Amino acid sequence: VRVSELSRVTGVPVATIKYYLREGLLPRGRSTGRNQAVYADEHIRRLRLIRTLREIGRLGIEDVRAVLGAIADEELPLHDLLGVAHRALGPRPDPSPVTADVEAARADVDRFLDELGWQVGSGAPARRTLADALVALRRLGRDCGPEVFGFHAEAAERIAAYELERTSADDGRAAAVEGAVTGIVVFESALAALRRLAQEHHSRLRFGRRGSSRAPAEGSRPAH
Amino acid sequence: VRVSELSRVTGVPVATIKYYLREGLLPRGRSTGRNQAVYADEHIRRLRLIRTLREIGRLGIEDVRAVLGAIADEELPLHDLLGVAHRALGPRPDPSPVTADVEAARADVDRFLDELGWQVGSGAPARRTLADALVALRRLGRDCGPEVFGFHAEAAERIAAYELERTSADDGRAAAVEGAVTGIVVFESALAALRRLAQEHHSRLRFGRRGSSRAPAEGSRPAH
Repeated sequence: VRVSELSRVTGVPVATIKYYLREGLLPRGRSTGRNQAVYADEHIRRLRLIRTLREIGRLGIEDVRAVLGAIADEELPLHDLLGVAHRALGPRPDPSPVTADVEAARADVDRFLDELGWQVGSGAPARRTLADALVALRRLGRDCGPEVFGFHAEAAERIAAYELERTSADDGRAAAVEGAVTGIVVFESALAALRRLAQEHHSRLRFGRRGSSRAPAEGSRPAH
Repeated sequence: VRVSELSRVTGVPVATIKYYLREGLLPRGRSTGRNQAVYADEHIRRLRLIRTLREIGRLGIEDVRAVLGAIADEELPLHDLLGVAHRALGPRPDPSPVTADVEAARADVDRFLDELGWQVGSGAPARRTLADALVALRRLGRDCGPEVFGFHAEAAERIAAYELERTSADDGRAAAVEGAVTGIVVFESALAALRRLAQEHHSRLRFGRRGSSRAPAEGSRPAH
């Protein structure tokens, strides 16, 4: 297909495609002379992956390059490849100095994950995110340990196990990364939305009055 | 306590406390003459709540005012009060025009929630977030309906039910809101972090080699 068709199929503007070509993120198409080139299915797949990383994962160009490099490095085991994607998606390291309560919370989280038996790299950004959540609770005056996250940890593990069952190494490394990035980002957002919706539902079951709220029961107030 | 002590106990700077006093978000303390006032436990609690809304919920001053107003409105049922907090925490409405695929996804999500039997207000921001996630999957070329979120919906409902069990109306309306906001925001962040950590763990179980990855097995390479 021509670049215009490639743009139509993937929804990526032609100017953006040319930018990816210049940056070397997308391999050149087969030249057909006179400044034209044709692109194959591999270009469509690669472009979809870049789009996932950019738009869903909100990765910068250099992080996209790192992930694509990890995919190309056939020596790198799939698990480590997923680790590269995870780290690229994680929050940037916070440059502010680590206060004593943050340091204590990080140690607590490390111990908590050890006790769960989870094998997680010591530099995983999500360790810091979890410690920050614990710090937030404590600064609000709650006297709690990381065990306060126990129920959520169990739920998260069931979800992750379900998701990983659906990730196959057979589809190739690029497909595994695309699936992982989609899974990490899109389903993270979906899960957060579903939890809020379910909170509203359960809040209604628990505290709501029947029918639409704030509407007075029939006859309880004069019409006016 | 004096304003300096109020600042020390809550961790909110004196200048910020004075700003909240000027804005009427925090009631004035009991005047003890000569430009001094003393503050009571209710001020500490109110300040903690404002801090939760501002720092954890990242609410603007006007949204904080709306939530505090809803707490003060004793006529408003607790469920609706929680709804006010939910909406204040939700994403701002996206001003970009709604494309056909977004509209279709929103209708799909509405139907999906109906089928789940969840009672959720039609204006809940999380409906839009979930529809956006569905659009993202479809734009990536996945041919899927909202049922793709079925497993996550079940997990989210279990989590919400667990969380709501711990929310009591007996502690007062301000405490219920503080608990809800903390629950919505801090545990949302914690759940996302736990899911990523669990993904890494299960990815290692599934694709990782035993021991630290990329380190050669003992004796497989000469030391150098």
